[in-house]
Parts: sequence; C-alpha cells; structure tokens
Amino acid sequence: MPPFPVGSVGLVEPRLLRIDTPLMLACGRTLPSCDIVYETYGTLNADASNGVLICHALSGHHHAAGYHTLEEAEKGKPGWWDTAIGPGKVIDTNRFFVVALNNLGGCHGSTGPASVNPETGKPWGPDFPIVAVRDWVKVQARLTDHLGIQQWAAVVGGSLGGMQVLRWSIDHPGRVANAVVIASAPKLSAQNIAFNEVARQAIRRDPNFHGGHYYEHGVVPEVGLGLARMVGHITYLSDDAMHQKFGRDLRATTYQYGYGAEFQVESYLRYQGETFSRRFDANTYLLMTRVLDYFDPARDFDHDLARTLSRALCRFLVISFTTDWRFSPERSREIVDALMDAGKDVTYAEIDAPQGHDSFLLDNPRYLAVFGAYMNRIADALEARHAS
Amino acid sequence: MPPFPVGSVGLVEPRLLRIDTPLMLACGRTLPSCDIVYETYGTLNADASNGVLICHALSGHHHAAGYHTLEEAEKGKPGWWDTAIGPGKVIDTNRFFVVALNNLGGCHGSTGPASVNPETGKPWGPDFPIVAVRDWVKVQARLTDHLGIQQWAAVVGGSLGGMQVLRWSIDHPGRVANAVVIASAPKLSAQNIAFNEVARQAIRRDPNFHGGHYYEHGVVPEVGLGLARMVGHITYLSDDAMHQKFGRDLRATTYQYGYGAEFQVESYLRYQGETFSRRFDANTYLLMTRVLDYFDPARDFDHDLARTLSRALCRFLVISFTTDWRFSPERSREIVDALMDAGKDVTYAEIDAPQGHDSFLLDNPRYLAVFGAYMNRIADALEARHAS
Repeated sequence: MPPFPVGSVGLVEPRLLRIDTPLMLACGRTLPSCDIVYETYGTLNADASNGVLICHALSGHHHAAGYHTLEEAEKGKPGWWDTAIGPGKVIDTNRFFVVALNNLGGCHGSTGPASVNPETGKPWGPDFPIVAVRDWVKVQARLTDHLGIQQWAAVVGGSLGGMQVLRWSIDHPGRVANAVVIASAPKLSAQNIAFNEVARQAIRRDPNFHGGHYYEHGVVPEVGLGLARMVGHITYLSDDAMHQKFGRDLRATTYQYGYGAEFQVESYLRYQGETFSRRFDANTYLLMTRVLDYFDPARDFDHDLARTLSRALCRFLVISFTTDWRFSPERSREIVDALMDAGKDVTYAEIDAPQGHDSFLLDNPRYLAVFGAYMNRIADALEARHAS
Repeated sequence: MPPFPVGSVGLVEPRLLRIDTPLMLACGRTLPSCDIVYETYGTLNADASNGVLICHALSGHHHAAGYHTLEEAEKGKPGWWDTAIGPGKVIDTNRFFVVALNNLGGCHGSTGPASVNPETGKPWGPDFPIVAVRDWVKVQARLTDHLGIQQWAAVVGGSLGGMQVLRWSIDHPGRVANAVVIASAPKLSAQNIAFNEVARQAIRRDPNFHGGHYYEHGVVPEVGLGLARMVGHITYLSDDAMHQKFGRDLRATTYQYGYGAEFQVESYLRYQGETFSRRFDANTYLLMTRVLDYFDPARDFDHDLARTLSRALCRFLVISFTTDWRFSPERSREIVDALMDAGKDVTYAEIDAPQGHDSFLLDNPRYLAVFGAYMNRIADALEARHAS
C-alpha cells in the first residue's frame, strides 16, 4: 500500500546550489554569492535534452510536486503544481527531467532578504537588492549549467512564471526549445501596479515592519502582509468563482450588525491572510511585487514587443483563461500578436474556465488536455530522435 | 462679475434638522434623537410637487452643489454633484426643489460615530448603531415630512445612493413619483463584500484605531483609512481609465529599484489615501461599507427581486456604464429585468463610458443627455399640470 496517489512523484528532497561567482544585477549592484534551492523530478536523458524548467509565480517556490514528508502525503498536501507534474501527468516525469527552483530573493531556502548578509552578519532585510526577472533568469541559467543542460526542452511558467519564460526566450534564445507562457502578460497594467502598491503600503506601514528590519525585533508585519494577501486573493479569483464559492452566504442565519467575519467570504479572506502571514516573508513579498512592476522587456526595444520577441528561436504555447481579470486573455493576445508579427511559431489557447487567474493551478480538463498534448509532442519528438 | 460659473447654484448654506422622536433601527436598537444636516437648491412650488431628493454614495454628503464660501468658488471646488445640479443643468434648479442630506452615521454634520453619545458624554465611536439603508430612508422620510413634501418628483442616487432610491420605491411607494438608479446594484456580490472587508481590516487593525475609540486618544487610524481608500479608488476606476490616466508612466526617467512612489499611479493612490484619511471619519467608513454589505431588499421576499419591487408605484430610470466593474451593467440589468417582470415602467440606458464606476459623477455627454431628458419630462409634466 504505497502512501502516494497515482501520478505522484512521491517523496522528494530539495537540493542546494551555491553560486560563488559574483552576480551582476539589473539594479547595478553585485551579489558576491548566493544559495539557490531546487528540486528535480524524473531523469535527465543521455544527451540532456529532456529538461523542463518550472518558473514559479509570486508566492511559489521550488516545491512544485510530490511530498517532502510522509506527513504531507497523509495530509494530501503536495507541491504547488502537483496537478501538472508527475508520472503520466501533463509534464510527464516518465519522459521529462523536471526542475523547479526558489528564485533569488525568495523565502523558501534561496538567498533572500531574510538571509544573513555576510558583510554585516545580520539579515539583509531592506538592504537586499531589488532583483529583476532578468536576474532570476541569469541565476536559472547558472543552475542550468550546473545540471549539465545546454538547452531546455521547455521552460514553463504561469503568471509571474510566464514572464520568466518570456525573458528566457529573449535572453537565451539558444537554450530554450519551447516556451510555455500561461496566464501571463508582457508587462503590468496601471491597475496591476496599483494593487501591488496597496499591498506594499499595507506591509511597509505596518508598525511591526520597522523599515524592513523586523527580524531583529522578533516580530513580523503580519497585519500588513495579511492585508496584502487578502487583496491578492481577490484578484486571483474571478467574480463568478467568488459568487459560486461564497455568494452572500452568512455564517449565522441572520445579520449580526457588527464587524465580525459574518459573510463566508470574509472568513475565507481572513483565514488566507492569517495563514499566509505566518509562512511568507514580508520583504520577499515586497520584492516579488516590484519584480512584477518592473517587468517590461519591450522597454529595451522602443516598446516594440514584436521586435523584442524577434530574438526568440523557440516555439511558443500561450494559454489564457476567460475569467482571469488579473492577466486577462487580452494580455496573452498581446504576446501572441507580437509573436505572430515576429514570425514565430505560436500555439494559443484561450480556456473557458470560471476560476479566474487561479485556473492555471487547477484541474481544468481542457486546459490540461491542450497543455499535455503540447508537452507530449515535445517528448514524442525527443524520443523519436533517440530511436532513429 | 459674478464669482460663480454659469449653471452654478452659487453660495449655499447647510441647514440642520433635529429629529427628537426616537428612531427604531433595523438592527433592533433605538436612537433617541439625531441631527441631520442638509442643503436645498431651487424653490419648492406651491403644491410641493417639484422636490428631488439626492441620496449620496459611500463618501458623499449633503453638499452636492454650489459653494459654501467664496474661497471654494475661487478654487473651483463645488459640491460633489455640481455637474448635474444647477440652473439649466440635468437636475434643473430653475424647475426643481433639490434636497441633499448627509445620512445618519455620516461625518459631515449629521449624527454619527464621531458625535457625542448623550448617555456617556463621549463620542459614540464603535458603540454607534450599525444602520441600514432602510434606516436612512426612514430618516429621509422624516426630513420629507419636515419640508412639507408629500411625494418626491424624483428620488435620485448613484452607487450606494441608488440603493436608497430602490429602498424608497419599496418602503414608501406612494411618496416617490420617479426613481433614478445610477451605477448601482440590487445587492453586493461576494467580490464587492471582499473589497469592503479588506478596507475594514485595514482600518480596524491599524494600531491607532483603538477599537474605534481613537477620538479619545487624539489620533486617527490614518494608515488604515488611507489603505481603504486606495483599494476603493482602484474599484472606482476602470482598467482602461487607469491605463489612459497613468499607464506605466514613471515620475523619473528610469527605474529607481526602491519602494518610493515611482510610477505615477502609485503617487496618485498615495495622495488619494492621505487626503481622504484627513477628511473622513474611519468609523463612518466602516459603517458605510457594512450598510452596503447588508443591503439586499429581496432578502425579505424569498430572494425574489421582482416580487420585492412589485410594491413600487413609481416610474424608473436605470443607468449603467459599460466599464464599471464595481457595479457592472449586468447588475443594473438584474434590476431592470426584475422591474419588467413586475410590470413596472422602466427606462434603461447603458452608457458607453471609459471611466468605470466614477462615470456617474462625471461629465459624460450621452449620460447627461439621457438623464436630463428624463428629468425634463418630469418637469414638463409638472408644469403642464400647473398651467392647465
């Protein structure tokens, strides 16, 4: 009686890559060294051609599939993208060697604001450099070298993860065979930035923030971080999904005429805020939102996205979800239009899904069918090449 | 050289109505007395048939048109709906007697949480009863009696104001000839409640909130109230309007790699938050959001909106705006469909407007044309009756 469900990669163990050569960052600062935590699922083939890199979104990390402990398995709490990654799944670990990492600046084991700054012996806190998507891709390229991979069969990501995929296709055209960009955008809109700014103000104006030096005070800005997460959650769900999930349902039978968590949706949001603020680092959250704000690859090419993407050499799969209002289908179509203008090979699927932005993490049959078919064609071609 | 622009009602003076008979509230509590501040523009005709009542939205008040001082006029800062109210304007003060008040629980002169509780000699603060739209309408009916008006020619309101209009048509069918419901909804959605809850948590968890007793501590929860307003502002503007107004424009020429107000939209939001938190009472803000959450007139009629509105005897004008995502056209169509099912006389206009929810306050020619034509027909009919 195996403790893991069918299609699970089972128990997995994070690994650590120490990068000792200095890393020159987009902001102009240099990081002398950093640690990057990552996981792998499946086996790298002989010519190292079946690698798939998973890029995570705002609150993601390296633990994308399987379980760290038997306890997690018993609780049914696998990695964040276990829906898509595993033997026989969309990203089939029987065929692909899958790599997921925690990005630089994260709070799950990679060097970030909560890490000790070797120069001061104290946590970096607010002095940690503000990184950019291109810095992450630079780090990911170091990891790629370390793993002995010359070219990824696919680089894959949803939301902020999709932005890393775009950056890979532009900065390392020779090292990506396929780019899978899901529920993403070529840059944030003013509204996107506005929501991020609310989140940042909530965190930075929490009295427990202490200018970002809260580690030294033995507190965390949990109220601010909780508020940030609440705002985030509203943007991850569609209006419809919230209606289906909560509607106007009350926890009691009548109005209480007070400010308790009286509607189910209030209770849900408070819970999301509270649990998140216990498990995520506020400085990392600030950093991730700024990474999002700054991402705008066409800025270096006179704001011409087609010219920007003309550097890419890979094939593209772009997927969007009808009710996603954080990064709507229109934003994905901007990417698709630019790719077509640049003469690239692009497949686009707009998936009818009620759940909004969160859809990219969920078990939507049509989404997984389109995504899986694309990945299987990649695997088929790789295996055919080996057989011949 | 008159100091007022053409179409202005000029200088106006607020008046006070003291209500000394106890007011039984929806929450079950009774308010022994209250003060209500209001303004009037234009002249009540001989049979008191040309009255128009203006119901305000979340952060509104009694000062809907004209100026309180010459200084306000010089600064070009008239009442909040001066676009629509004045001689020759949509709500023509040459023809109508227009009344605007600050609702019970407000913070602009009417009795509210910042007022002194006669029983304790201290500000009510969190002990002020949570009122409901039906309580506001009850108070408005007292004001109507005081003014010697039996029936309003029209009751008019946008957003939360439109909810009061609906409540008037249900609770006092004989006292409303026309109901004008703009950019409103028959009840909040889960998403609407969720945004309100974020605002409330921001205020209530601000250390300066002191459980609502901040008056006694000589502070205000300005951070929380500012955050609440920032979230609100995002929902008042459309994604498109934000794009047109700010896009991704920076205040400097390059990225600063910090957390300052670097994008124009950040600077705008911060300013909105700061100025609002200096001029609005946090307890009133909490109250107003709860009034919104609780509004659901069909709750008393088995959730059947058509049956609810079947009590109404007035004609209806319902207006929505295409890019309003706070109360989308779909929400207005729910009202219109219910009115049609109930066999009521209803005119519906969905106005193509880029500005989102805020459109109801703005100078949109087609909106004002539709609205004005409706109001003029009311005035024409009244005047024809008098002439005959």
